Amino acid sequence: MTILILNGPNLNMLGTREPELYGRDTLADIEAYCTQESERLGVTVDFRQTNHEGVLIDWVHGAQDNAEGIVLNAAALARTSLSLHDAVAAINVDVIEVHLTNIYKRDGTRPPSMLSRVCRGVICGFSKRVYGLALQEFAWQPSINKD
Amino acid sequence: MTILILNGPNLNMLGTREPELYGRDTLADIEAYCTQESERLGVTVDFRQTNHEGVLIDWVHGAQDNAEGIVLNAAALARTSLSLHDAVAAINVDVIEVHLTNIYKRDGTRPPSMLSRVCRGVICGFSKRVYGLALQEFAWQPSINKD
Amino acid sequence: MTILILNGPNLNMLGTREPELYGRDTLADIEAYCTQESERLGVTVDFRQTNHEGVLIDWVHGAQDNAEGIVLNAAALARTSLSLHDAVAAINVDVIEVHLTNIYKRDGTRPPSMLSRVCRGVICGFSKRVYGLALQEFAWQPSINKD
Amino acid sequence: MTILILNGPNLNMLGTREPELYGRDTLADIEAYCTQESERLGVTVDFRQTNHEGVLIDWVHGAQDNAEGIVLNAAALARTSLSLHDAVAAINVDVIEVHLTNIYKRDGTRPPSMLSRVCRGVICGFSKRVYGLALQEFAWQPSINKD
Amino acid sequence: MTILILNGPNLNMLGTREPELYGRDTLADIEAYCTQESERLGVTVDFRQTNHEGVLIDWVHGAQDNAEGIVLNAAALARTSLSLHDAVAAINVDVIEVHLTNIYKRDGTRPPSMLSRVCRGVICGFSKRVYGLALQEFAWQPSINKD
Amino acid sequence: MTILILNGPNLNMLGTREPELYGRDTLADIEAYCTQESERLGVTVDFRQTNHEGVLIDWVHGAQDNAEGIVLNAAALARTSLSLHDAVAAINVDVIEVHLTNIYKRDGTRPPSMLSRVCRGVICGFSKRVYGLALQEFAWQPSINKD
Amino acid sequence: MTILILNGPNLNMLGTREPELYGRDTLADIEAYCTQESERLGVTVDFRQTNHEGVLIDWVHGAQDNAEGIVLNAAALARTSLSLHDAVAAINVDVIEVHLTNIYKRDGTRPPSMLSRVCRGVICGFSKRVYGLALQEFAWQPSINKD
Amino acid sequence: MTILILNGPNLNMLGTREPELYGRDTLADIEAYCTQESERLGVTVDFRQTNHEGVLIDWVHGAQDNAEGIVLNAAALARTSLSLHDAVAAINVDVIEVHLTNIYKRDGTRPPSMLSRVCRGVICGFSKRVYGLALQEFAWQPSINKD
Amino acid sequence: MTILILNGPNLNMLGTREPELYGRDTLADIEAYCTQESERLGVTVDFRQTNHEGVLIDWVHGAQDNAEGIVLNAAALARTSLSLHDAVAAINVDVIEVHLTNIYKRDGTRPPSMLSRVCRGVICGFSKRVYGLALQEFAWQPSINKD
Amino acid sequence: MTILILNGPNLNMLGTREPELYGRDTLADIEAYCTQESERLGVTVDFRQTNHEGVLIDWVHGAQDNAEGIVLNAAALARTSLSLHDAVAAINVDVIEVHLTNIYKRDGTRPPSMLSRVCRGVICGFSKRVYGLALQEFAWQPSINKD
Amino acid sequence: MTILILNGPNLNMLGTREPELYGRDTLADIEAYCTQESERLGVTVDFRQTNHEGVLIDWVHGAQDNAEGIVLNAAALARTSLSLHDAVAAINVDVIEVHLTNIYKRDGTRPPSMLSRVCRGVICGFSKRVYGLALQEFAWQPSINKD
Amino acid sequence: MTILILNGPNLNMLGTREPELYGRDTLADIEAYCTQESERLGVTVDFRQTNHEGVLIDWVHGAQDNAEGIVLNAAALARTSLSLHDAVAAINVDVIEVHLTNIYKRDGTRPPSMLSRVCRGVICGFSKRVYGLALQEFAWQPSINKD
Repeated sequence: MTILILNGPNLNMLGTREPELYGRDTLADIEAYCTQESERLGVTVDFRQTNHEGVLIDWVHGAQDNAEGIVLNAAALARTSLSLHDAVAAINVDVIEVHLTNIYKRDGTRPPSMLSRVCRGVICGFSKRVYGLALQEFAWQPSINKD
Repeated sequence: MTILILNGPNLNMLGTREPELYGRDTLADIEAYCTQESERLGVTVDFRQTNHEGVLIDWVHGAQDNAEGIVLNAAALARTSLSLHDAVAAINVDVIEVHLTNIYKRDGTRPPSMLSRVCRGVICGFSKRVYGLALQEFAWQPSINKD
Repeated sequence: MTILILNGPNLNMLGTREPELYGRDTLADIEAYCTQESERLGVTVDFRQTNHEGVLIDWVHGAQDNAEGIVLNAAALARTSLSLHDAVAAINVDVIEVHLTNIYKRDGTRPPSMLSRVCRGVICGFSKRVYGLALQEFAWQPSINKD
Repeated sequence: MTILILNGPNLNMLGTREPELYGRDTLADIEAYCTQESERLGVTVDFRQTNHEGVLIDWVHGAQDNAEGIVLNAAALARTSLSLHDAVAAINVDVIEVHLTNIYKRDGTRPPSMLSRVCRGVICGFSKRVYGLALQEFAWQPSINKD
Repeated sequence: MTILILNGPNLNMLGTREPELYGRDTLADIEAYCTQESERLGVTVDFRQTNHEGVLIDWVHGAQDNAEGIVLNAAALARTSLSLHDAVAAINVDVIEVHLTNIYKRDGTRPPSMLSRVCRGVICGFSKRVYGLALQEFAWQPSINKD
Repeated sequence: MTILILNGPNLNMLGTREPELYGRDTLADIEAYCTQESERLGVTVDFRQTNHEGVLIDWVHGAQDNAEGIVLNAAALARTSLSLHDAVAAINVDVIEVHLTNIYKRDGTRPPSMLSRVCRGVICGFSKRVYGLALQEFAWQPSINKD
Repeated sequence: MTILILNGPNLNMLGTREPELYGRDTLADIEAYCTQESERLGVTVDFRQTNHEGVLIDWVHGAQDNAEGIVLNAAALARTSLSLHDAVAAINVDVIEVHLTNIYKRDGTRPPSMLSRVCRGVICGFSKRVYGLALQEFAWQPSINKD
Repeated sequence: MTILILNGPNLNMLGTREPELYGRDTLADIEAYCTQESERLGVTVDFRQTNHEGVLIDWVHGAQDNAEGIVLNAAALARTSLSLHDAVAAINVDVIEVHLTNIYKRDGTRPPSMLSRVCRGVICGFSKRVYGLALQEFAWQPSINKD
Repeated sequence: MTILILNGPNLNMLGTREPELYGRDTLADIEAYCTQESERLGVTVDFRQTNHEGVLIDWVHGAQDNAEGIVLNAAALARTSLSLHDAVAAINVDVIEVHLTNIYKRDGTRPPSMLSRVCRGVICGFSKRVYGLALQEFAWQPSINKD
Repeated sequence: MTILILNGPNLNMLGTREPELYGRDTLADIEAYCTQESERLGVTVDFRQTNHEGVLIDWVHGAQDNAEGIVLNAAALARTSLSLHDAVAAINVDVIEVHLTNIYKRDGTRPPSMLSRVCRGVICGFSKRVYGLALQEFAWQPSINKD
Repeated sequence: MTILILNGPNLNMLGTREPELYGRDTLADIEAYCTQESERLGVTVDFRQTNHEGVLIDWVHGAQDNAEGIVLNAAALARTSLSLHDAVAAINVDVIEVHLTNIYKRDGTRPPSMLSRVCRGVICGFSKRVYGLALQEFAWQPSINKD
Repeated sequence: MTILILNGPNLNMLGTREPELYGRDTLADIEAYCTQESERLGVTVDFRQTNHEGVLIDWVHGAQDNAEGIVLNAAALARTSLSLHDAVAAINVDVIEVHLTNIYKRDGTRPPSMLSRVCRGVICGFSKRVYGLALQEFAWQPSINKD
């Protein structure tokens, strides 16, 4: 089983960007953690990052034939990209939305992610362990073709 | 007369994506339909699709010297892209906004497209025939230089 | 095939009312244009106007047995008449909503028509040609009984 | 005791219009039911329907001298007609608002009727039996002159 | 100079309807007052009332050739009728909006009239004298053709 | 047939609390009236009151095996208790919502009850007779198992 | 009878400030017009202007013993000054609110004046003649002590 | 390590309540699943349910001395109970919020839980496995005293 | 004179809960302070706390015969409990609302308490001294029967 | 210890202005009451009133060196004056906000004072005794330098 | 060239008021800086401060004949004073709005200044250097008469 | 010192796009102006433009090691791109936001830029001179490392 792990804009800056908020782990540290967890669970992970919304959409489309699940940390695009929302809705592979921090701490007037409603579920607030829990969930319950 | 037909994010997934909503025509089917209609009307069409907002903006700018009209199906970007809105406002070629489905069926609190107000007009709800009607309109009334 | 073309309040003032916005065509000019287009397409049109919401509702109900489609320019009632909305929803004949101007140009906070969501689709912004395009659409795809 | 039963726009389409929502009873069936209930309760009913807001207002005014109560199913006008609201407030006969369906099922942001606040009370959700319950209430408690 | 004085829904109930709010003058009393004032000012008045929005719109259109000014008390339609708003905007005769009571006393979140913005001005709060002041204004400054 | 009549917070204060608004009947008077009506209709009633939301939820759950219908006057909890809303939705017994006063008289911006949308219907505004009408409705149309 | 005519901030700039909007009359011209009208009506006027909200409040308080009516053009303070609103509410002399332009033309989301609800009535849109009409109203109906 | 698993109103109805939405697992099934997972992870769980907000608050307070973590499925109270929110904020034991379904699927205008912002994180959408993932997270990262 | 001092949810956690916000006084310290102040003022106090909304409502009702005033610190229920609001409105004993902190510091969009409008007045921001000031006020001005 | 007692616009009209709302005490009566209370408490008071926002700001600034506390009844400026809000925030003397009436009785959508969040606390609803309670609070707890 | 530099309420407290936010420069320091910069640029500056809105309006009006430009730091009045807004719009001298801090840091729901739309432009966020940059702009591009 | 000057979507169309709004300067003209100013100030500028949000984010990240400041004209992305906002927040180089026109002229309900709150400050409204003023500010006060 191959799981695609997709990371959106600015996550390449992790570790240097507001470490009191996002922790001192770099994206490379997270990738190493994911690889280690995937080996424990017996799944294969394909870990990527981009600052380009269009590239992220292309990757989501590409999962249709190449992955049994997607772990998606869309960063700011979770709040603004209706195109990414439609891309997730367009494929028959389940997507789990993750965030390093508890995005619901902001006391805003809108749900902080417009992606959530097209994902299987959401995991947030446990720093890099959100990736590990999402992989665990896919190991327990692989993606079911939505058609 | 050359008409540029531009399609935005996720439209490459047509036919597989929510067919009960968007129908079973693929984007290739729609391109074939447009070619056939354009031959009937005696116009030339240039049919393109991209998932990248920046590419779509570049294409709109490029119409300034290469097209007498644009048929634009911006998909989700119609609701979110102020940059695309500004691109349409920046050129002196008329743009007709089309959507396969009746986007006003959603009973939301906002107009479902921010592009409409800089376009010549809007046609939506008739599946692939919205492209045919837009071509008909340009055949009847070519783009008038806005300056 | 008979198509009912219904026009709502104040459209009898066309040509004299804000011509820089609505053009110099009178309602009689538009009726003549519709007759000419209907002959080209081989359909029969029944063209009417009223300033009374109740009359418009009666006419919509009457289409149940007397028309294969309705082209509806409800003017201001498109924004305010829930009763007309319900009348359109109550019949099994398809309705195409048209407006001479691009009603989405107004940068308001609400969708500018509450009728759209019960119509087959919307065409607006091409002055009198919106009627011609709606007739073309019915010629291509006659009304399908909704039951 | 004479009770006026007034029905607003589109209720003449009952039985054919969205029967899964409004049931298969026609307006004639409801009138027959009301006649039968009124005989059981010993009251006289005057049962009418119109698609014209102005006619409905005239009828409400007319109750001032000709009825001891009004059962009002204003349909869509309940949500939009401030004029009808003022008509109900202008007379000294009590009005009971009824709706065949539970209009509060729609999870909107506004009260679904602006008439309610000038009526004696509201009964909705029990299909044609809402008329029977309203008649029962008037039989128990006739209209009290508001002056 | 002929001035059309148009009164909207429920104003026929004046004197009986909430007299502590609207006073004890009937519509006939107001018409007599207007006739008396018009004689003093040397103008002719044509005084009408209707509960039908469509009739009011027809009357406004009719002023185009038959009046030099309109005094309009639209009652509840001032708050809800976009069609009447468009009718006022469609003619080249000035309209003065009047209300017997000070409609701005209601501490609402919306302007209490959508007609005001297409009228020459507004006079409200002085019971029947609002008609007298409006006639005075037309006597001082007749309607100027808007074209 | 057993009908459960449930009353929420503060209804034990009836008769002393704002009698000009809620009348001079005490809750004991209302219970006596319900008993009398139930005997006339040949049904059994179980009449209860509590100020505790949790108790009310427990009672609603308990109806699953012990009642053929519920008449629910939730008082202030109708506006605030999503838990009670979910309890009503969780059982297969129909619930009729009642209120002594016409709760729609308050000109608020929200529907005054969040329970309504999971109830069979609503009756309000007729003081204690709302209970009688609800019992009449259950006598005419017993609860139908929702599954 | 003495009528106080009070003018708020920036009205001293009339004639030079946006003349296409406010006309070419200076405040001195308006004062001359008011004097002339007051002589015709047999009343005395006391005409003042200030840019200071506190001074305006002091003047309103001072009317308690020195005037039979106030004509108030509060300019921008009409939209923002709750203190001025309270000053008007605190005295037993009637206030008529006037504005040179039709302030309801602005299609805003709030009533454009918070003063209106404590005034006897409002007159706006007739340039300097709004003062003349207000004086006429006081001549017809002097201020009635509110206590 | 002892983990308290707290379940709020109506969760006792699981399995019978809207099974197409919440699945066919009863609360007893979920408790069995939690026990099994806790044994695998070497932690002790204390599994409880109540329909009473006050009881839930008492239990949260009690964790201060008796648990190393709380898994909280507050059901409808997540959206409405500020008191529960304050209880979670008042203790120095971490709370993980879980929901069987993806509560963000509802396209509402408010964040669907007011508890989230005082919890360590959120897991939702994976039916009973949300409890397993929360236990996994506590096994990886025990509660850290917040003081 | 007996004064009931009622404390709502989570106040039993005072001293341990966010002491930088609520101070280091425990509820027992506050009770001791109240006893001391009541002795100085010659009144009797009955000091209670509960986490259960229903219990709080029962206590408020009980004051009808057992107290000359209520000092109410409803904590989070001040913002959410319409039932408590109705309980306060239902009795003829005056209630003074107190809060340890200045609840108006939160820059929210809603009044932070829905109880205030049915209380005699509000005192907040002076930590435990708010209880002393409320007792002082009752000593100066005992509760006046509202009927 | 010197306490500055500052009163804002229109409070000079107390006793004559809406006495059923504000009572029959004049501002002189309140000053006398404050003097009497201050003597009892052993503090000095400096009691002032102005209708000018700028003067009030100057007085607040002046407290920096001349007072140990400010009791502020800003009247309408509490709701509108951000400048006064900034003045209170700019000094290192504590301010207690008072209002004669319970300003939270108005069921508005905004907190009725924007000053509250920069004050030590708020006391309202006890007529002139609010001043006495504020003086008591300063006697118990003098102003603490905020720097 | 004379440039008027106007400073609004509370800016006289600079240096003592929240120095971590506004810096330790006093208003006198800023005036000295402006004088130094004006000498470098060869312009004359007239530097003033007031806490009175009316005085600020008088000064703006006075610029009509006495200055070639205005640098305006209106402090809190930028957010609340429509009168000052109108004063700026009434003159034919350009105004540059400045703020010491970046006023857009506050994540509010409204633009933080209502003055901006009538000014030539805005400079904020660079502490006292905002004055220097505004003077530079006037030196590069003197005020152009708006008529 | 190297300053990065970054320009967003559609700015390549300057000079042809709505010149009455944006002026006749092309982007090349602005680059020449910036080069000239930078030479005067002794700094180096790197001037770029792109229509692709992702490219802009990459460039902002790249400044971390290659620039002492960024002048950012994000065009429409200022209003919509939360990703760009996060990119600016992620680096330790100061950013000054500039706009050719006064973007606050639009009388909207939202702050017209979401970038402002993570920038050092904002300069807008002075056409190409906004770039010159931003360079001047960086010359006076180089970027200070935010960590």
